[in-house]
Amino acid sequence: MNIATQLLEIAKSAKKAAATLALAGSEQKKSAILAAATAIEKNAGKILTANKIDMDNAKKSGISGALLDRLELNESRVKSMADGLRQVANQPDPVGKILAEWVRPNGLKIARVSVPLGVIGVIYESRPNVTADAAGLSIKSGNVAILRCGSESFESSSAIMECLQTGLKSAGLAPDSVQLIPTRDRTAVGEMLKLDEYIDIIVPRGGKELIKRVLAESRIPVIKHLEGNCHTYIHASADVAKAVKITVNAKMRRCGVCGATESLLVDEKIAAKFVPLIAKELTDLHCEIRGDEKSRSLDSRIVPANEEDWDTEYLDAIISLKIVKNLDEAITHINRHGSHHTDAIITEDDSAAEKFLTEIDSAIVIHNASTQFADGGEFGMGAEIGISTGKLHARGPVGAEQLTTYKYVVRGKDQIRP
Amino acid sequence: MNIATQLLEIAKSAKKAAATLALAGSEQKKSAILAAATAIEKNAGKILTANKIDMDNAKKSGISGALLDRLELNESRVKSMADGLRQVANQPDPVGKILAEWVRPNGLKIARVSVPLGVIGVIYESRPNVTADAAGLSIKSGNVAILRCGSESFESSSAIMECLQTGLKSAGLAPDSVQLIPTRDRTAVGEMLKLDEYIDIIVPRGGKELIKRVLAESRIPVIKHLEGNCHTYIHASADVAKAVKITVNAKMRRCGVCGATESLLVDEKIAAKFVPLIAKELTDLHCEIRGDEKSRSLDSRIVPANEEDWDTEYLDAIISLKIVKNLDEAITHINRHGSHHTDAIITEDDSAAEKFLTEIDSAIVIHNASTQFADGGEFGMGAEIGISTGKLHARGPVGAEQLTTYKYVVRGKDQIRP
Repeated sequence: MNIATQLLEIAKSAKKAAATLALAGSEQKKSAILAAATAIEKNAGKILTANKIDMDNAKKSGISGALLDRLELNESRVKSMADGLRQVANQPDPVGKILAEWVRPNGLKIARVSVPLGVIGVIYESRPNVTADAAGLSIKSGNVAILRCGSESFESSSAIMECLQTGLKSAGLAPDSVQLIPTRDRTAVGEMLKLDEYIDIIVPRGGKELIKRVLAESRIPVIKHLEGNCHTYIHASADVAKAVKITVNAKMRRCGVCGATESLLVDEKIAAKFVPLIAKELTDLHCEIRGDEKSRSLDSRIVPANEEDWDTEYLDAIISLKIVKNLDEAITHINRHGSHHTDAIITEDDSAAEKFLTEIDSAIVIHNASTQFADGGEFGMGAEIGISTGKLHARGPVGAEQLTTYKYVVRGKDQIRP
Repeated sequence: MNIATQLLEIAKSAKKAAATLALAGSEQKKSAILAAATAIEKNAGKILTANKIDMDNAKKSGISGALLDRLELNESRVKSMADGLRQVANQPDPVGKILAEWVRPNGLKIARVSVPLGVIGVIYESRPNVTADAAGLSIKSGNVAILRCGSESFESSSAIMECLQTGLKSAGLAPDSVQLIPTRDRTAVGEMLKLDEYIDIIVPRGGKELIKRVLAESRIPVIKHLEGNCHTYIHASADVAKAVKITVNAKMRRCGVCGATESLLVDEKIAAKFVPLIAKELTDLHCEIRGDEKSRSLDSRIVPANEEDWDTEYLDAIISLKIVKNLDEAITHINRHGSHHTDAIITEDDSAAEKFLTEIDSAIVIHNASTQFADGGEFGMGAEIGISTGKLHARGPVGAEQLTTYKYVVRGKDQIRP
């Protein structure tokens, strides 16, 4: 069977399974996910053995440190996967919620009710835990998932997938409610992106190149997460000590996550106090600071920034720094150079904060906290399948609720339209 | 200036205007729309004169009856446009609504707040009233609209646009918050569809060919309305007299609208009673009935249907008719052949109705009423910019509320992420 035919078969069986899964009860879905979590813990040994094969292959093919780290599983990471599934299982069912209801003057009763999207395609890279997260969120939201893992995590993902299907079976649900594309063949992604008749939405989860490719090729709507060029703006009325603490966390807690602050804007009225302090803290942590001229005149540890720096998501121990005249300049700069992901203001002035929260056109806007809270888990969603930087359908963290759509249910008493 | 440059200029000015319009207050937006309604009534003469030019040109170029009818304005249609705007103006503001809010264990307060999408592109055909509807809904939802009317309605739409801009100005809003592309040049649509950096969403409103072209060419997400192959299913427990009355209305009230029933499914247990009655009523109204063999054995007025008929949206006085064994066969048929727009069941059996409402995968599902209620106005939305048959972002009638997205507003007390 060639890849195109194979993908078509998978998509057809997924669409068929979707009609049944959409009608599954809350308890049934919950018990499937909980059983999958148990199966993952029980089969930890098997999963780790599979992961060892992936790791050995990866090392042989010369895969680098950060990628290897993402690929690697250990007992605690397997435990986290199971815990993540349990958190998703215990969320409220996002399906069948009456989102709104009203009665028309002619007596028609109209309700807007949440329903699953249908079939979700998830394309990801090296992290095998995405297999569990994506499948858990899909089952919870009544959607069938077709998962395409990175070729380097194929053995690990396959072992995890078995546990998920065990969970589905034990709850009386069809095991093909979640499916992993059973091939490493790289043409499979292209074939998958053509199947708009069967797949309702594509969620790419990975680096910029993957997402660009998916956006360019897909005939299926995509929930995109392009970049996280996040800002922290230190307002004139910030508490300097708190601002330093929050900024260090926002940049350095983990610099490889999309919610990491990549660009620091400092109000000129507070710059003389704030800049030397933050420059010391960050350089002590081996973070490079690329600043504009004004900031460099305040601290010699700051190296020169160029225009490109304002648009760059480093995902590394580098931050850009710009001194701005006021709140308005900060807002204009962020709306122009940011990626509409997550941006924060640090200030003791509530009216300045409200202006920032209102006028910044980003998925997540934050007052007095670290941008690293941009995360479905931190938002209380149990898990996330990604963070959308697009405005259509879902914006910000995409949890089970964001994987639903709605239908209008109209109950009449033989009304006809005049 | 060439068309590409012209479109780019329009899109840039739209994006700029969007940042301001997004912050406009409810009262300001409302008064702009009300003032536009007044301006339309005051300038009815001017609008009708412009429409006469469009009509004369259309006749000269040999445009047909139905299209001419859609193009034509008269005093009562102008009045309807103004009334439609007033209805939209008086709807609740869909922007700034707190859709959900919660507090995390660490004290972070998270709110999901509705915000405008930004810039909406609307591409439509001959009906000039879309100019007013689309602009009204856009202003209401805080979005800037770029409108591309059909070339045949250019003079009428331009005259209406002047009134809309008068309304915006009188409320202190920038007149370029709604813009009509000021050229009949047919390459403008293609150029518009490339501007994904400036336009957030495209709403095509017109025939299948237009929508297919937009879907194929657009780099901007599209709210699509493909077809309305709507069904009415007469269940075994239907009240026959009511079923006849509802079916006649569902098909014949207006056969050219997307909510018109195109296919009638009749349970075999009620067919002998129902089919001759509906066949008489519909043929008396000059509606052609294309039925399967079983139905033709019940009434000689029914002509043979072929397989294609089950998938056809006639938008004409034609209906297909199929006898089905039971509710399950009806559901399977509709989910397979329907266009996921609007489908109705007629029955006195509430549990059969609930099964139908749950299992039919359509934007609108109806129990005991005419499918012709599938309409934003009838749903109480004031007006609609279209009916989405897609599942992403908006499904069913697209009113002002569906033209919004949301952002997460996070209020902290100096929390950092551990």
